[in-house]
Amino acid sequence: MPLKLDLAATDLTDQEIASLKEMRTHCARRILLSTSLAASGHPGGSLSSLDMLLVAYGLLKNNPEDPRMAERDRMVESIGHISPGVYAVLAENGYFTEDDFLTGFRRTGSGFPGHVESIVPGVEWDTGNLGQGLSTAVGMAQAFKTKRMDNRVFCLMGDGEHQKGQIVEAMRHACKYKLDNLTVLVDRNHLQICGDTADIMPQSIRELYRVMGWNVVYLEDGHDYNAIFHAMRDAYGNTGGVPTVIVARTIMGKGISFMENKAKYHGSPLPPDMLAKALAELGVDNDFDQWQKLREEPVKTNTIMQPRTDYPDVQPGNPVVYDADTVTDCRSGYGNALLGLAEANNRPGEPPVICGVSCDLEGSVKMGAFHKYSPEGYLELGIQEHHAAAVSGAMSCENLVTFFSTFGSFAVSEVYNQNRLNDFNHANIKVVATHVGLDVGEDGPTHQCIDYLGLIKNYFRFSVFMPCDPNQTDRIVRYIATQPGNFFVGMGRSKTPTITREDGSVFYDADYSFKPGRADWLRRGTDATIITYGAVTPACMEAWQILTDAGASVGVLNMASLLPLDIDAVIEAAGTGPIVTVEDHHIETGLGASVSVTLLEQGLAPKMTRLGVKHYGGSGKPADLYRQQGLDGKSIAHSVQQLLG
Amino acid sequence: MPLKLDLAATDLTDQEIASLKEMRTHCARRILLSTSLAASGHPGGSLSSLDMLLVAYGLLKNNPEDPRMAERDRMVESIGHISPGVYAVLAENGYFTEDDFLTGFRRTGSGFPGHVESIVPGVEWDTGNLGQGLSTAVGMAQAFKTKRMDNRVFCLMGDGEHQKGQIVEAMRHACKYKLDNLTVLVDRNHLQICGDTADIMPQSIRELYRVMGWNVVYLEDGHDYNAIFHAMRDAYGNTGGVPTVIVARTIMGKGISFMENKAKYHGSPLPPDMLAKALAELGVDNDFDQWQKLREEPVKTNTIMQPRTDYPDVQPGNPVVYDADTVTDCRSGYGNALLGLAEANNRPGEPPVICGVSCDLEGSVKMGAFHKYSPEGYLELGIQEHHAAAVSGAMSCENLVTFFSTFGSFAVSEVYNQNRLNDFNHANIKVVATHVGLDVGEDGPTHQCIDYLGLIKNYFRFSVFMPCDPNQTDRIVRYIATQPGNFFVGMGRSKTPTITREDGSVFYDADYSFKPGRADWLRRGTDATIITYGAVTPACMEAWQILTDAGASVGVLNMASLLPLDIDAVIEAAGTGPIVTVEDHHIETGLGASVSVTLLEQGLAPKMTRLGVKHYGGSGKPADLYRQQGLDGKSIAHSVQQLLG
Repeated sequence: MPLKLDLAATDLTDQEIASLKEMRTHCARRILLSTSLAASGHPGGSLSSLDMLLVAYGLLKNNPEDPRMAERDRMVESIGHISPGVYAVLAENGYFTEDDFLTGFRRTGSGFPGHVESIVPGVEWDTGNLGQGLSTAVGMAQAFKTKRMDNRVFCLMGDGEHQKGQIVEAMRHACKYKLDNLTVLVDRNHLQICGDTADIMPQSIRELYRVMGWNVVYLEDGHDYNAIFHAMRDAYGNTGGVPTVIVARTIMGKGISFMENKAKYHGSPLPPDMLAKALAELGVDNDFDQWQKLREEPVKTNTIMQPRTDYPDVQPGNPVVYDADTVTDCRSGYGNALLGLAEANNRPGEPPVICGVSCDLEGSVKMGAFHKYSPEGYLELGIQEHHAAAVSGAMSCENLVTFFSTFGSFAVSEVYNQNRLNDFNHANIKVVATHVGLDVGEDGPTHQCIDYLGLIKNYFRFSVFMPCDPNQTDRIVRYIATQPGNFFVGMGRSKTPTITREDGSVFYDADYSFKPGRADWLRRGTDATIITYGAVTPACMEAWQILTDAGASVGVLNMASLLPLDIDAVIEAAGTGPIVTVEDHHIETGLGASVSVTLLEQGLAPKMTRLGVKHYGGSGKPADLYRQQGLDGKSIAHSVQQLLG
Repeated sequence: MPLKLDLAATDLTDQEIASLKEMRTHCARRILLSTSLAASGHPGGSLSSLDMLLVAYGLLKNNPEDPRMAERDRMVESIGHISPGVYAVLAENGYFTEDDFLTGFRRTGSGFPGHVESIVPGVEWDTGNLGQGLSTAVGMAQAFKTKRMDNRVFCLMGDGEHQKGQIVEAMRHACKYKLDNLTVLVDRNHLQICGDTADIMPQSIRELYRVMGWNVVYLEDGHDYNAIFHAMRDAYGNTGGVPTVIVARTIMGKGISFMENKAKYHGSPLPPDMLAKALAELGVDNDFDQWQKLREEPVKTNTIMQPRTDYPDVQPGNPVVYDADTVTDCRSGYGNALLGLAEANNRPGEPPVICGVSCDLEGSVKMGAFHKYSPEGYLELGIQEHHAAAVSGAMSCENLVTFFSTFGSFAVSEVYNQNRLNDFNHANIKVVATHVGLDVGEDGPTHQCIDYLGLIKNYFRFSVFMPCDPNQTDRIVRYIATQPGNFFVGMGRSKTPTITREDGSVFYDADYSFKPGRADWLRRGTDATIITYGAVTPACMEAWQILTDAGASVGVLNMASLLPLDIDAVIEAAGTGPIVTVEDHHIETGLGASVSVTLLEQGLAPKMTRLGVKHYGGSGKPADLYRQQGLDGKSIAHSVQQLLG
């Protein structure tokens, strides 16, 4: 029977304090048992943050019977390694049985992994990499503000992880957007894996929050229930436009005499003999052997939560068709489509459904018209890409269709790991990157993202689409808005012609609809096939013309859907003759590599040449950079001719 | 004839001020001309930071005739986009001619790229991604402290980029390690691409440095030469153990009336008509047309600096050979080899040659013995991986053999872009990651790095080696220490058997020496080949035993050098029969993909099965996780048998 505390109370009653103490004993026992049973895990921080967690669950709006109840408050554990403490408290609050937890903890296939994951009822977000949970919590708090909902968000953090730079990015966002619905709890035990936080990397956490503009509350004793209650109650009722951090001085290993203030217990469980002593200190029976025996049985999996599946019903709006004479950039196609989506889905006076996030590049990524139309839906997060990617992922899980747009190097390469965490979390983020590839031109190699496919292939739940012209861009952007899941859409910087059929009519016309895993034959040929996508498609069309003029019959296959790949089309191409893949991407990790893997898997070995970026690009006009790497029309035609012999 | 200022002077002389004003006019002209000629680039910030750059080059120790003179001070431009200003000042200081710069700027193949690169004489580091230059400067300053040299380091930064979290990581390092040889210059023009910094993402830059413990100097007029001189002179002489930041209030577009304080000119050049007006304001002739004509000629490349080639002479020390009965982890093999390298190269009383950097994981990555032996060579940088990777790269270019060690997820996935910048910069970083792959076990998917090869393949100058046992680890670690260049060496967490020959003797014995691009046949076979590496090698040996017992003759090829790959060995395997690749890595992006690409390139299509990680790993014992993904001995043997039919 979970304890619920009265937010209007002046103090906790004696009975409430007694209950909390009793709950603490139950939870401390579970923390010690679970880690000793698994022979791994993190008891120290679990014990130091335990009292804050117990009071927090006494205050926040939740429903163990319906862990995803819409009105619930959120608790994000940025320190994912204190899973024993989190699971212990969730069990105490009735989310699942102690038996499920203790028999399953850290076992393959169980519902109780080593770092908290949202397969556990009551856990909101998979964490593990330190310093990223605050961005997630900010994203959730932002989503509630954007949706005009009054849910509150708590974020439990460690002190060591405050060394991570991403945290100050999140701190700034929370102030800029007045997220007073957010409360951070810092478990200030002064210890991290290698010792005292002041020795490892000195800093004043409280001063940092203060200079960032937060409301800072310090608890001298982070185990004093009334003090915790007062601070949390006040933060819960805060509507002053400023987020709150409660920094609580705690004791690592609190409650077990020989574990207290020992950095060792950050990540070390007790061996059975010391566990016996610890349980004796708690005054509870030692049932380690019984549990150990139960853990010899196959894992039970009945508590595993399935990924969220709710997703808003999004209208794609009316496609924009660019005619054959239009020469514009895919970026503008994106900007127009995004505006169209806002017009179709963000109703005046109501909270937005379509949201946009950018990092000091609103104009370059063409989000300006969207921003103007739907100011509430647009977030300018400054030059803080790590945080922005994490925020976008979190928002995308709160039924906001969130587009994260910046240059490719920042949207993919810089935030690879943030998007990996979004991927773990079954997010619905729409990463639309502009300024991708050598097409960036004069800004040079730091700005030339030539690894978008090579990187995103390493996730398991992302799709990668690369439109070849503004028409295809329009349709792809509208498509991804209507679909749950993680998507990457990339495009170059330059203006590019509308792709047409041989008769000069628009290829991606009003009848076209985009389908993942389906490539398009821009030209059919009987001698060989050029497989390409994105910004170099016009060069391939030029090559096609050169080859056609020279009497060769060559097909051009536009593989806009790179992940998933159109395997049937690849097989068809291999059946036709030699293949040349052409891409504005690192030659070893892009389409050419994907096609090679696919062909070999099919037992096919057609003659094949991979064209792509063979060394870091220079600073110059895109046409010159392409020529330098053999990616211009003539060079492509020449490569095909060489294969044809 | 460059101006040199007297560090002992109280004030600048009137003549010096007159010279600086004259130089300013020359440089402002070049900034405007170069960007208008290229029709792209960043004139605004170039003009706002110009006065600081001019004074800095008057103070710092340098030699335009010998741009890489050992005693030179360093200037890192974290805002790489103000290249026009940097090149203008370098030309003024005699590093190259104005002609080279103006004819080459932003042209393919020229020596003057859009963001500063070290191909330009006088430029120390390629930058472009904002917020990372301070880490580089800290790395250089740290290197000088470590080497007990008194060179000074300047870092020119923008105000907008101070939003980036990595900067606070660098700030903390500079204080912890008392880098008083470092001076940061902040071009505080209050504008970034999308507008006022206070609107984009509000913060107090000065307060941030103060709370981080820096010596903060504020210049109300960042264009007042005497004020700049006083601040820089004092900072240059600073030996107080605290780094200095000079925050200078400047004016974007300073000196051209209609450009001042306009965010637009952050990244927009003047069109010819407005250029004419601007040059008139400067009181100089408008020779735009002449330069434009010169730019029609082919690019001159005579100023391009080649990458640094100096590298210390490192003794590999005596290899440690682990006997056939030893069961230890590769991490310990690494720790012992690192200690051996220190013993062989870090002489008592002298500055260290071998350095180690870690992020609150000293014990886990087995750097403890090294740290104890060579305390001056060890840096504990806390949970600040972005910064630590950048610092390690910078130190590695200062003749310090720098090992950067943390878990794979943090050493690769989290810092992908930082290592990409190291790669641009021809660094010599030795990334040795432990806790790689599913072998991490119970810590679960956030901690399981299954993309090391998939990611690093996207660079151009990194090698990837994955040892299969402690003996091979020992030899690989010693090898990379002796070689310039960027290396990644990865290993699991668990104890692993010593790999032996069929007769039971140690395979990687005292006679073994590691060679990149050379694979080892652990077993020869005539029916099929298992190609593998790293932590799953023992499982492959188990599979070999199962298959041998069943009468099949199967080879086992250890591909420890994954980048470069041993192409000849792959061809040899394909000539033998079917191939099964086995790896503790994402199945689509690792060895299996590399082998597929290689085979197809050779026109070979043997029967092949790729085994690897097919979905994010769970939390459990490594053996269970391997079994779940078909990577245990039995499953591997079964896969081979299926191919053999």
